[in-house]
Amino acid sequence: MEKIKNRLNRIIFGTDTLAGRLFDLALLGLIVLSIIIVMLESIAAYRLRYHRFLEIAEWTITILFFIEYLLRIWILDKPWKYILSFYGIIDFLSILPSFAALLMTGTRGLIVLRAMRLIRIFRILHLPKYSEEGRLIIKSLHNSRHKIIVFLMTVIAIVIIVATLMYSIEGQQNGFNSIPESLYWAIVTITTVGYGDIAPQTATGKIIASILMLLGYAIIAVPTGIVSASYQELRRKEKGQKECPRCGTENISVARYCHRCGEPFGTDE
Amino acid sequence: MEKIKNRLNRIIFGTDTLAGRLFDLALLGLIVLSIIIVMLESIAAYRLRYHRFLEIAEWTITILFFIEYLLRIWILDKPWKYILSFYGIIDFLSILPSFAALLMTGTRGLIVLRAMRLIRIFRILHLPKYSEEGRLIIKSLHNSRHKIIVFLMTVIAIVIIVATLMYSIEGQQNGFNSIPESLYWAIVTITTVGYGDIAPQTATGKIIASILMLLGYAIIAVPTGIVSASYQELRRKEKGQKECPRCGTENISVARYCHRCGEPFGTDE
Amino acid sequence: MEKIKNRLNRIIFGTDTLAGRLFDLALLGLIVLSIIIVMLESIAAYRLRYHRFLEIAEWTITILFFIEYLLRIWILDKPWKYILSFYGIIDFLSILPSFAALLMTGTRGLIVLRAMRLIRIFRILHLPKYSEEGRLIIKSLHNSRHKIIVFLMTVIAIVIIVATLMYSIEGQQNGFNSIPESLYWAIVTITTVGYGDIAPQTATGKIIASILMLLGYAIIAVPTGIVSASYQELRRKEKGQKECPRCGTENISVARYCHRCGEPFGTDE
Amino acid sequence: MEKIKNRLNRIIFGTDTLAGRLFDLALLGLIVLSIIIVMLESIAAYRLRYHRFLEIAEWTITILFFIEYLLRIWILDKPWKYILSFYGIIDFLSILPSFAALLMTGTRGLIVLRAMRLIRIFRILHLPKYSEEGRLIIKSLHNSRHKIIVFLMTVIAIVIIVATLMYSIEGQQNGFNSIPESLYWAIVTITTVGYGDIAPQTATGKIIASILMLLGYAIIAVPTGIVSASYQELRRKEKGQKECPRCGTENISVARYCHRCGEPFGTDE
Repeated sequence: MEKIKNRLNRIIFGTDTLAGRLFDLALLGLIVLSIIIVMLESIAAYRLRYHRFLEIAEWTITILFFIEYLLRIWILDKPWKYILSFYGIIDFLSILPSFAALLMTGTRGLIVLRAMRLIRIFRILHLPKYSEEGRLIIKSLHNSRHKIIVFLMTVIAIVIIVATLMYSIEGQQNGFNSIPESLYWAIVTITTVGYGDIAPQTATGKIIASILMLLGYAIIAVPTGIVSASYQELRRKEKGQKECPRCGTENISVARYCHRCGEPFGTDE
Repeated sequence: MEKIKNRLNRIIFGTDTLAGRLFDLALLGLIVLSIIIVMLESIAAYRLRYHRFLEIAEWTITILFFIEYLLRIWILDKPWKYILSFYGIIDFLSILPSFAALLMTGTRGLIVLRAMRLIRIFRILHLPKYSEEGRLIIKSLHNSRHKIIVFLMTVIAIVIIVATLMYSIEGQQNGFNSIPESLYWAIVTITTVGYGDIAPQTATGKIIASILMLLGYAIIAVPTGIVSASYQELRRKEKGQKECPRCGTENISVARYCHRCGEPFGTDE
Repeated sequence: MEKIKNRLNRIIFGTDTLAGRLFDLALLGLIVLSIIIVMLESIAAYRLRYHRFLEIAEWTITILFFIEYLLRIWILDKPWKYILSFYGIIDFLSILPSFAALLMTGTRGLIVLRAMRLIRIFRILHLPKYSEEGRLIIKSLHNSRHKIIVFLMTVIAIVIIVATLMYSIEGQQNGFNSIPESLYWAIVTITTVGYGDIAPQTATGKIIASILMLLGYAIIAVPTGIVSASYQELRRKEKGQKECPRCGTENISVARYCHRCGEPFGTDE
Repeated sequence: MEKIKNRLNRIIFGTDTLAGRLFDLALLGLIVLSIIIVMLESIAAYRLRYHRFLEIAEWTITILFFIEYLLRIWILDKPWKYILSFYGIIDFLSILPSFAALLMTGTRGLIVLRAMRLIRIFRILHLPKYSEEGRLIIKSLHNSRHKIIVFLMTVIAIVIIVATLMYSIEGQQNGFNSIPESLYWAIVTITTVGYGDIAPQTATGKIIASILMLLGYAIIAVPTGIVSASYQELRRKEKGQKECPRCGTENISVARYCHRCGEPFGTDE
């Protein structure tokens, strides 16, 4: 029994055996398939024509996910830790929609739950390469979070004040029906999306909008500079440069002699 | 009396005591609440239905801000310095709208004043962490201001010349009613916002617009590069400079000898 | 015969002789001309008026490309290697459309094949300067491909989940007819293109759209930082490395001692 | 006579005397005024009402520019060098429109010439600070021109091929009337401007458009990285770091002793 558990553990949680890799691949395929089914179902023509087929496919996938979920709980020593973990909840939500659809009518909202299965992909992608890269990106974002918060707060403050200004200048007759509506316009503008569903009509409104656009265009340089600097610094650090004990010059991690003064570094590596 | 003043001073201006922190938090909540009220009031449905409630809430907040303002003046030794300072004026403007509304009709414009209360948030956020980060960003923008001005002037010159060109090519029949209107279009285009409320119709106009777009798309790299470089430089510099004990010159953190007087720094590193 | 082949080889494949350069220039002109013909033909007015002339021009170019293709095959020792290479296929596709048009009716699709002749320009531009720069850009993109994939996957996951959310919130009555349609809207929004052909109408939809926009606006900093760092690193590395005369290790240009064997480099710098 | 010439020379071409500065300021004011007049004249309401006044103002400015032009020619030893220089031609074009309007009717095109006076501002802004910063930006763009050309060529090739593809897929019924029109759409899309005047209607078209958008969104990182790297490198070089002759460490330009080994640098500075 223990032996089966151990073997399943290596297949389901591990990535070092062939079986483990195949399991991950199968799961990946299943997730992608399930997302495609959700998409097809949302297209009216397909929904009407292949209704039966799509339903069967969805139930098949749900049952496979259900079995997988039960197996994961069974083979783990501390199942609750898994059940309450981020991925444990995501895994549970993956099974929910089909069962919930049995009990409820108007299953519109359930489609979002089904799409959230996509998040499971990130677990499967725990290939060393990608997770390392991802970690670096997340860490450099994390390191510069205070700056990003300051930046976002400034953007939001600008957006709220400009939105109020535009609401009082343009008013309801020009589509700026309320401050929240005006806020939506300001975000559409400062991020340079520019749908054009709401656009300033008065001369003053156009001048303020122009200033907002130039601002949005220019300040994008700030987060870029911040993330760029943080990322470079982190990378330099992680690549393990070492300092020469005699002259202090920074050498690349594989150096055996200081490239500046010739000091040997010893062979602790 | 002096004692009460001192205590209030630490609560209102300080952030190191629990009471001071709670005061800041309460003020933060009040500001956010006041902004939410402004927004709700701007939505026609809410304005009609909850008119009474919103008015009371606004007056309550105004009175609380008023008390706070009076307290600040009372506890300070040099109240005029505060009253005429940037935040002093902002604090005064926070109280103004409700009182002004008593005297005036057509209070549309006052809504902007009310939204400006938001600026007060930045004072409250004088947490060491955030203010440090904000200072770094502002300083790196300040250091590169000459470059940014040169860049903006070039953008504005391009925009004006292209706008005139488009006005003479497209003309009134295609929405380019005047050069200022044309300018608005050029800014909408070069910043890649692209509302689409005005768009070139003639072949020549489309060619010029295409060039403007490619230009706007490419030159965004310039301010990004500038801010990025300035920010990185500043960061490297600020990260732990040390002062020479003999001559007082600031040295970079990895220095072993003062770069000005040659004094060795010891080997505590 | 061998002599003619050799000479042609230097003209067609080489860029070091005058004849080779002229051949490249002629080919460049022919390609650009052929693209211009495709464009003119697509304009209804020109197609009707200059139909005869455009057809003759197209056939002339096709025949010249055909001759060039045959010559390339003839002069090479291993023609199959060329025929099955990337540029070999592109060259073959350059000739195909005109001949195919004889056999088929409804030649709409063939126009794309004709436009693909443009790719041939990149072979001609094997001038040392440009190809060196291009190589650097491609290499720095290649070096950061794992990061870019992680980034793109995150963007796509966000886009799919937001698209599903918007489909269930906005629904068919507001233009979000299906999830694929919703996906298209999400990409239009996160990339800040913002056509405005589909735009959120409900309050909740606008809030989610605003978050998506701010996200798209902010995370563009990530790939910029990645590519920037990778490019700078590569450049620093490539700028004049020197090889150790004793052990052959490549050292950075300012090195005075080999970082691997300690060999001093002399002081020619 | 020579004395007057010399004095005028210092006023007109110099910026070191008070008179020279005032002259520059007056000219700056005149240029800005002339641009404002052009703008006001383009607004129908103002043109009709203040026609007389605007005409007089324009002629006054023209005559002042004319006098300035004659003075510049008179005081210079080699007037032809000035006349044929970039700014000489711009100065001449500044006078032209008013005189040309006497001879011609339909003066639409002349408005562009009048707007080009704006370029003269850049000469006046030869303040050391700004011209230094501008020079740095231009130099770093110049240094990376080969890369920018390679990048732009790639963008243009992508744009042309996608445009042809979209023309054959969407066709005239969906607004993609011809390949040039399709090209305009592709540029509007890849630069993330997104007017929405032309937008894909078919499913295939939307998929291709989505790919183009993601491409445009991602590759903006390339020129940013290039310019950023080039600018930083240039700046480091220009700030005149100096290398320690004993240990080779790079020191800041004002260092008197090496911060690494304490070596004195001598006092050649």
